[in-house]
Amino acid sequence: DTSTPVLEPWRTSDGSAVQFPYPCVQTSITRISGEEMILGLTDRCRFFVNDIEVASNITSFATYNEFLLVTTNSHTCQCFCLKNISVKALQAGLSSAAAHDSETLRKVERGSRIITVVPQDTKVVLQMPRGNLETVHHRALVLAQIRKWLDRLMFREAFQCMRKLRINLNLLYDHNPKASMPSSVFLENTETFIRQIDSVNYINLFFTELKEEDFTKSMYLSLSGSSDAQPRQHPDQKKVNLVCDVMRVAMEHIDPQRYCLSILTAHVKKSPPELEIALQKVHDLRESITPDVKAVSAEEALKYLLFLVDVNELYDYSLGTYDFDLVIMVAEKSQKDPKEYLPFLNTLRKMETNYQRYTIDRHLKRYTKALGHLSKCGPEHFSEFLNLVKDQNQYCEALKLYSSSTQEYKDISDAYGEYLIQKQLYEQAALIFARAGIFAKALDAFQNSGSWQQALCMASRLGYTKDKLSSLARSMAGKLVEQRKHAEAAILLEQYTQDYEEAVLLLLEGTLWEEALRLIHKYGRLDILETNFKPAVLEAQKSQLIFLDSQKTAFLRHKSRLQVVRELKEKACESLQDYEMPNCPELDLFSETSSVVTASDMNSKYSHSNSRISARSSKNRRKAERKRYSLKEGSPFEDMALLEVLGENIRAVEAVKGDIHILLKQLVLFGYDEQAGALQQVLEEVLQLMETSIPEIWTPDLQQSSLNPVLGPSSTANSIMAAYQQKRMVTPVVQDPELLIPPKLSKNLQWKLHLLQ
Amino acid sequence: DTSTPVLEPWRTSDGSAVQFPYPCVQTSITRISGEEMILGLTDRCRFFVNDIEVASNITSFATYNEFLLVTTNSHTCQCFCLKNISVKALQAGLSSAAAHDSETLRKVERGSRIITVVPQDTKVVLQMPRGNLETVHHRALVLAQIRKWLDRLMFREAFQCMRKLRINLNLLYDHNPKASMPSSVFLENTETFIRQIDSVNYINLFFTELKEEDFTKSMYLSLSGSSDAQPRQHPDQKKVNLVCDVMRVAMEHIDPQRYCLSILTAHVKKSPPELEIALQKVHDLRESITPDVKAVSAEEALKYLLFLVDVNELYDYSLGTYDFDLVIMVAEKSQKDPKEYLPFLNTLRKMETNYQRYTIDRHLKRYTKALGHLSKCGPEHFSEFLNLVKDQNQYCEALKLYSSSTQEYKDISDAYGEYLIQKQLYEQAALIFARAGIFAKALDAFQNSGSWQQALCMASRLGYTKDKLSSLARSMAGKLVEQRKHAEAAILLEQYTQDYEEAVLLLLEGTLWEEALRLIHKYGRLDILETNFKPAVLEAQKSQLIFLDSQKTAFLRHKSRLQVVRELKEKACESLQDYEMPNCPELDLFSETSSVVTASDMNSKYSHSNSRISARSSKNRRKAERKRYSLKEGSPFEDMALLEVLGENIRAVEAVKGDIHILLKQLVLFGYDEQAGALQQVLEEVLQLMETSIPEIWTPDLQQSSLNPVLGPSSTANSIMAAYQQKRMVTPVVQDPELLIPPKLSKNLQWKLHLLQ
Repeated sequence: DTSTPVLEPWRTSDGSAVQFPYPCVQTSITRISGEEMILGLTDRCRFFVNDIEVASNITSFATYNEFLLVTTNSHTCQCFCLKNISVKALQAGLSSAAAHDSETLRKVERGSRIITVVPQDTKVVLQMPRGNLETVHHRALVLAQIRKWLDRLMFREAFQCMRKLRINLNLLYDHNPKASMPSSVFLENTETFIRQIDSVNYINLFFTELKEEDFTKSMYLSLSGSSDAQPRQHPDQKKVNLVCDVMRVAMEHIDPQRYCLSILTAHVKKSPPELEIALQKVHDLRESITPDVKAVSAEEALKYLLFLVDVNELYDYSLGTYDFDLVIMVAEKSQKDPKEYLPFLNTLRKMETNYQRYTIDRHLKRYTKALGHLSKCGPEHFSEFLNLVKDQNQYCEALKLYSSSTQEYKDISDAYGEYLIQKQLYEQAALIFARAGIFAKALDAFQNSGSWQQALCMASRLGYTKDKLSSLARSMAGKLVEQRKHAEAAILLEQYTQDYEEAVLLLLEGTLWEEALRLIHKYGRLDILETNFKPAVLEAQKSQLIFLDSQKTAFLRHKSRLQVVRELKEKACESLQDYEMPNCPELDLFSETSSVVTASDMNSKYSHSNSRISARSSKNRRKAERKRYSLKEGSPFEDMALLEVLGENIRAVEAVKGDIHILLKQLVLFGYDEQAGALQQVLEEVLQLMETSIPEIWTPDLQQSSLNPVLGPSSTANSIMAAYQQKRMVTPVVQDPELLIPPKLSKNLQWKLHLLQ
Repeated sequence: DTSTPVLEPWRTSDGSAVQFPYPCVQTSITRISGEEMILGLTDRCRFFVNDIEVASNITSFATYNEFLLVTTNSHTCQCFCLKNISVKALQAGLSSAAAHDSETLRKVERGSRIITVVPQDTKVVLQMPRGNLETVHHRALVLAQIRKWLDRLMFREAFQCMRKLRINLNLLYDHNPKASMPSSVFLENTETFIRQIDSVNYINLFFTELKEEDFTKSMYLSLSGSSDAQPRQHPDQKKVNLVCDVMRVAMEHIDPQRYCLSILTAHVKKSPPELEIALQKVHDLRESITPDVKAVSAEEALKYLLFLVDVNELYDYSLGTYDFDLVIMVAEKSQKDPKEYLPFLNTLRKMETNYQRYTIDRHLKRYTKALGHLSKCGPEHFSEFLNLVKDQNQYCEALKLYSSSTQEYKDISDAYGEYLIQKQLYEQAALIFARAGIFAKALDAFQNSGSWQQALCMASRLGYTKDKLSSLARSMAGKLVEQRKHAEAAILLEQYTQDYEEAVLLLLEGTLWEEALRLIHKYGRLDILETNFKPAVLEAQKSQLIFLDSQKTAFLRHKSRLQVVRELKEKACESLQDYEMPNCPELDLFSETSSVVTASDMNSKYSHSNSRISARSSKNRRKAERKRYSLKEGSPFEDMALLEVLGENIRAVEAVKGDIHILLKQLVLFGYDEQAGALQQVLEEVLQLMETSIPEIWTPDLQQSSLNPVLGPSSTANSIMAAYQQKRMVTPVVQDPELLIPPKLSKNLQWKLHLLQ
């Protein structure tokens, strides 16, 4: 009885029987994501996949290969690729119609229904309500077909279809640029492509449409879902240049004469365009004696080139080949007046070759080339050369044209150096002078740039006498002292003026105690210890005490003001919460609140006053310039300004730790234990104050706010909002998160002395 | 008819008539916050202030001065001060009973009702349900009364009340420590206090209870609302010591004999206790010949003192007075065996005074004092002195006892220096040696600490010959080179060994080009330019190229790995969100995810390999030590480790900019334009790569996360949670917010040369 045919229910892949909830007037079997499924459409527009209703507005459908086409009540024709789609996604796609992607969806006439899809083609036949049939090319099908053709290297079919249906020709390359690394399917088969297309015009059309853009990423975002996230294979090489070069080589290989115009196009299309080469090819055509029938005449080629490129540009380029035949050929095609260009060309013709080329280059503003040619014209043209160099700032290029031993090199260097001095690049000017042997100017320039060592070298080159050297050294030492470079100044005075006493005084002024001691002992002048060294050390102790005290005072003042500001903000925040106006302009409120409390003329308090230590104060000035927040009481970001200035206080004290350590050692060495002890104690107190204050100023809250917001597993919506409101008030939006990070106190330097503890 | 009395309604301050909603069985008029109001209580326990019902569980009430007392259904008696309270606050206080403040609220027997408050006293009379009357002292009333007394300087009444009702006596001072700056009401009236109290015992009782704590801030938080936020007026001075001193002075003024014991108490109570002074007073009592009746006998006083202080402690202190009578007096009162202490005392008695005192001090471990006395015992005891100094590390103290010109000073310094050397504090040891004139040891120690300048000074002090100086200089130069201090080493060789050639070589090794050039020209040895300088410059160019290349490679590798890690985390995060398990242990998940992807032996890649530049690599090593996150692929904080190492790459390149600038100048000076150009270009590329990468690595998201969380006016609960979940994955909880801040590339240094652009 097994041979008796039996009706069996249609089963899904997991074995359950399929039953449409309603009778369907049209059914079809297809594969969705590889699984065989049955589609059904009722006369009430309800559309089923197996027994799942995926849409209720479908008026007709058809399947073709992996595609499903449907028409809907909203007068669209949609196309889905079923290869990699889930039923859910299909349902979503049908219901939302969200994907207004031109490839998926197109409008059709009201009431259209799909009759069939033409196999092996891209046509969809629709019936209109009046009964008449119409054909549309659904872009999804078209692209799918083109892709198939391209995969099979059927370039002609693809090209014709693309041309007819206005698909961008870039797709020829973009479709599969990565198939086989390092080259692409298209680039590997350009000869096949050219032979199949077999049309100079079509190839030129392709060149014309070529763009850097990857059209599979923009216009033709593939529906098939196999979105290739990999980047283009030739990231360094540009697509257009690459395609042009490969195509040109293929055409030159197949038939350079036939594809002459396309080859010219390939040159012109590149960026930058290879116009000289194109022109040269045109020129070669004219010269060539092959009266081939296929061959394009030079005339024709030039005409074509002028169609691609502006005639004036081409004229300039032709001039640039130094080939007068070519120039005249181009000029004749242009609207230029022969009375205009012929005399110019004739003048040129009479010139010596190098000077002629120089003249052309200069005319074309190709100054580097111009200089190259001019440099070959002999010394009688050198002043012209130098003027051009100066006019066009071509110093670097000019220097390359002469050997460094020549007078010309020296002259150019001289001019270059003067130019750099004008630009206030003294040191670089000095280097240029020096290497050209212009030592006197080099010395001046080195001196101006503060390169005292190099200046001394120049003086030695110039054979300065001892006296002259000494006065040079003394003058430079003065400048170095102005820049607080006491160590360097002292070297100058000791070694070049033999004035070690003055050197010691400078070292003391710069608080370079140990070097001062060294010189004192080197020259056996222990009397200076009493007369100068000890008083200087004691003076330094006093000034450090004053500095520390001023920092401490400022620190305490800023710290307590920060406390006040924070409390004010918190109060303002609370009152905001009371009135439930989380979006109100809190900044105005703050400035109002605080203007009641403050006298705004307190600003002057914040000016730094430790004028004793001028290097430091100049540093402070620079710092002050980059301050972005105002310390003025009541200013909206006063708390940030306070954080900033508190950080600066800490860093300033931290920075003097090393100096003080060295100073303490000198004090102890000379028995000033008491003064040393006092200084050590004050510094320790200030450091301790700052260390304990850091967590109060840079509260964990503040730091946390910079990282982990108010959220956590235990947070509730209310706690989040409350914390948020509070935070928004306390921590304003700042540009510099580094202000929220506490400055670090280094524990590495053991600056304290055992004797003083 | 105006004279006819007319009934008028009771009106509130704003003029509206008051009507109780229910008839009240008891009414009363009082002032609340200064405004006259009427209180009413119905027979159903409803309590009204004007026509506002403030409570519904009041069983009785009474007003007294500014106080309102009520009993409630929950068997409590509450007391409110109406001076500065709003009706709302009163209502809140009555309903919540939140303030379980002992001063406001006390439990009473069930059913108690207030009958009356005794005027000018602190008693409240309550009737029990059985009809019997009872009296309670409500603490609020008590304290109010005490405060009034204290304000009126009625100390006796206050004291007696406090003693009876066990109010802490500190309140006597704490009540009003600030009234008139700088002193307090109490301190200004101590004599009045003492005269009013008129009892040694009571005064002693007061001393006994004295504590640093401010009881108005702790136990007796005032109800009256006038919370004085001002800090204590004597922040530096301790309260107990202050009170003790002022009281003692007052008592000594009034009658030192009568208040003898209290005066002793005042001494003992101080911290640290002034036991010597107390003992001295006892001793003086014994000596005194005033057989005053009032006077306390020495015997009595000592007994009292022993009651306050441990006898052994007192014995030691008595020894410390060097007064043997006193010692024996104390010893007799103790349980000490006379056979024990008498021989010791007898031995002491026989000694020379200073040596005796030294022996006692030493016995009592008062080494500083001991040294002081011992130093007066003459040179024959100096070795004992020195041994004690060494044993007890009393070097600093010991040095103070001798003038710096003495041999003793030198000997102590010698010992101190050796001690510091043992502690490896070479430089400090050297300073100690040097100032005591022990120059040879100082030289060694300075050399050991790397203080080459000071070592030279010592050599000069020691009168070193030129040869000896030269070999010292050469040896120190070797050490300095090891520490890459080439400039210093070169100074030593040039100036102290006259070996300028070697000096130049060292400068070249340290890439100190300009200083090398200076020496070359100073000594007119231009041949070194060819033989050494130029090769060294070219070598440096190569090694900088290698360094930049290695940094670039590492940077790119880390950057792309960061990309991968971030994508992995995002994916892991998405899948987490799908499964809605926000609290699952994501870190495990990551390490699993990534262990699939990675080979963990890639770690070795990260070891720095620029061994050429050894100073740099040692710096890197130090940096590596403080790394907290593992670069190992798949480690939980790999992204943080990558951020860290990327920041280091950037900072390393940033740091060589200055060196390269100087190097470029030398290359140009000697005509190596090509090499200079190559180096400049590579550095520029690397800097550009880093600059453009910074916003990709330190994304605005990352930085923003450090400041403004996911919250904003437009955020919803869902958006917050979504962003939160994502963020929690992407930005782990880090200890170092500075990792999230991009390193800064300085634009200040114009390192590029014009010639090479």
